[in-house]
Amino acid sequence: MDYRFSERMGGMSGSATREIFKLLSRPEIISFAGGFPATQCLPIADVAQIIAEILSGDMGAPALQYGSTEGFNHFREELKRYVAGAGVIAETLDEIQVVSGGQQGIDLACKALLDKGDTVLVEDPTYLTALQIFASYQANIVGVKAGENGLDIEDLTVKIIKYKPKILYVVPTFSNPTGNTYSIENRKAIAEITYKNNVVVLEDDPYAKLRFEGEPLPALKTFDSGGNILYVTSFSKVLSPGLRVGAAVGTKELIRKLAICKQGVDVTTANISQLVVANYLKKGLLQPNIDKSLPIYRERKNAMIAAINAYMPCEYKHTDPHGGLFIWGSIKGLDMATLMPKAIERNVAYIHGSVFHADGGGKDTFRLNFSNASLERIEIGIKALGGMFKEELAKK
Amino acid sequence: MDYRFSERMGGMSGSATREIFKLLSRPEIISFAGGFPATQCLPIADVAQIIAEILSGDMGAPALQYGSTEGFNHFREELKRYVAGAGVIAETLDEIQVVSGGQQGIDLACKALLDKGDTVLVEDPTYLTALQIFASYQANIVGVKAGENGLDIEDLTVKIIKYKPKILYVVPTFSNPTGNTYSIENRKAIAEITYKNNVVVLEDDPYAKLRFEGEPLPALKTFDSGGNILYVTSFSKVLSPGLRVGAAVGTKELIRKLAICKQGVDVTTANISQLVVANYLKKGLLQPNIDKSLPIYRERKNAMIAAINAYMPCEYKHTDPHGGLFIWGSIKGLDMATLMPKAIERNVAYIHGSVFHADGGGKDTFRLNFSNASLERIEIGIKALGGMFKEELAKK
Repeated sequence: MDYRFSERMGGMSGSATREIFKLLSRPEIISFAGGFPATQCLPIADVAQIIAEILSGDMGAPALQYGSTEGFNHFREELKRYVAGAGVIAETLDEIQVVSGGQQGIDLACKALLDKGDTVLVEDPTYLTALQIFASYQANIVGVKAGENGLDIEDLTVKIIKYKPKILYVVPTFSNPTGNTYSIENRKAIAEITYKNNVVVLEDDPYAKLRFEGEPLPALKTFDSGGNILYVTSFSKVLSPGLRVGAAVGTKELIRKLAICKQGVDVTTANISQLVVANYLKKGLLQPNIDKSLPIYRERKNAMIAAINAYMPCEYKHTDPHGGLFIWGSIKGLDMATLMPKAIERNVAYIHGSVFHADGGGKDTFRLNFSNASLERIEIGIKALGGMFKEELAKK
Repeated sequence: MDYRFSERMGGMSGSATREIFKLLSRPEIISFAGGFPATQCLPIADVAQIIAEILSGDMGAPALQYGSTEGFNHFREELKRYVAGAGVIAETLDEIQVVSGGQQGIDLACKALLDKGDTVLVEDPTYLTALQIFASYQANIVGVKAGENGLDIEDLTVKIIKYKPKILYVVPTFSNPTGNTYSIENRKAIAEITYKNNVVVLEDDPYAKLRFEGEPLPALKTFDSGGNILYVTSFSKVLSPGLRVGAAVGTKELIRKLAICKQGVDVTTANISQLVVANYLKKGLLQPNIDKSLPIYRERKNAMIAAINAYMPCEYKHTDPHGGLFIWGSIKGLDMATLMPKAIERNVAYIHGSVFHADGGGKDTFRLNFSNASLERIEIGIKALGGMFKEELAKK
């Protein structure tokens, strides 16, 4: 059979993370590649208890029957309270859509907004699967310069004028992959210029609760003056990625379009998953679970920084984030994609940085995840990586 | 904010079923509108037991952590055995993709195959949400004539030659909405002509196990000689729609493209949902649950036919299916969309037939679902509908 695949497939290869998920099943591999939460932070017993309660009560049948595409109303009430904690105000439930993971929020927004050739601006570098999603809509993806405190507003302005983008995609808090957090001033400036120029901002906010240092910042969405910001959050990093539950918050008009798109995509988010998160929030279990997780993440990040200082070549320049899951850096002169197989030979995995760049640049950059390896394996892994990089530099 | 929505949104309104799901929450409404399985056929206690076992065992952590996009391997092994029951042979696991409901299988196949303007052939009438999905890819949707025994092969041939379609979408067993089942000869002819002409067939097979009369037929996929048929099945009707689990079976090449598309859409199907179905199959619980359900469906279908004979005007021409969930029919001269609000006033809901037609035709047709109302409510509802239709006919 000579399949006539769609044009969009030409721009979509299997993503780096997807292939790396497969490597993770080999126990000898120390993976700094994925974005997995620490397995011991997954509240298995609480989830078991909640599901037992759901299925033995009035919600047992609704849990297994069809539900409404927007999500369970009582779950959306919980979500309304939850996002208010980040300063995100939904006036009514019509402004909240349950999604099957934060990523589905991005995908549905693209479906509602993008035609082939439309421009999407992204922080450069940015979340690689978001790039895959934009490619699947055949968007023109343009990177915006960014630094420690957020987007370069001058570059953003120039590119908004030049490309008239439909979407600006950002992860303002503990950005993936850099770990950077946009300042309040930067958030305000982004909200203002995008609103003035009729650009929808997709604010992807899966990591903000994973802050182990410093003070929380209000979401970019809190500076939304006219409804151009769609806020997307996820329970993957703070509760469980396997549940596949997130939420999108925006104007009634925009959320309605997301619901229409979702109807054709997966009808509803899995009911049991929705009800687990709803009851987990209702019982007030989320914050205690996060409080229990943060010291683990802080310790692991510190261990990775210590190992970097001990074993990495001094040419390695990197971030030192106050939260999230990632350390981002570069070693001038090395091609991190080419070195990936050599790292795997030494039983260590990372993700090379070019896949996070809209233009495929950043060949000397790479992302390290610190959340899902033990302190011992962090040291062993960084030592192995550092040794390899030093050898490679010595060859130059 | 003046949103610049995508062109595709122009062709996508909220689907009729989506709006009807909302009406169902009003208890006084007798709904013949949805496609819900009977609530008493949902195996709540078994699901509770299975989840308790999963979360207290070795799969507890994997159930809540990230998993691979293709689905759990041991689940795909179970699926391989399951679809073999319909004669569908997957040589390796690479030919099976877990999907978040059968509908996602259709959506992912469209993403992999369709460019704007490509033609999709469908049985006329067909599943309305499939029409919505094709519209979301801006396809040219063309209906093929069909009768009690399947597609009109002459019309199919003419339209394949005329439109060079990329996809033919069919529900060969207990078609939605007509309840018709394609004969073996018809299946063979469809498989042959589509393969010869390089057309991918999406075989949507959610209802075949719900046969309460007659002998099972082999899936259309069993006549696939060269890999052009993608078989999609679902556990929504035989186990639970709230879990959102289905499976797609096709060549390795095609399934790989579906996995790439799924990576950007929802990463994985909810793990607990996958594991519930895996263990339900492994424990051999599915067939006994179906065996328990079939007498209920048979009784309800017979009750609806009896009520139709007692109360509907003789102008009503309808099908009398051997399985599935739907009775399809028409009353010449009545506009079923216009009459919908009048039916709702009498506390009965159906779906008007024009939404199942690619060209919006079939204004005098409508679909009745018999699976999700009690015998008593079936009689009350059909009596009310019959009375209304008779009054309307009398006005002519």
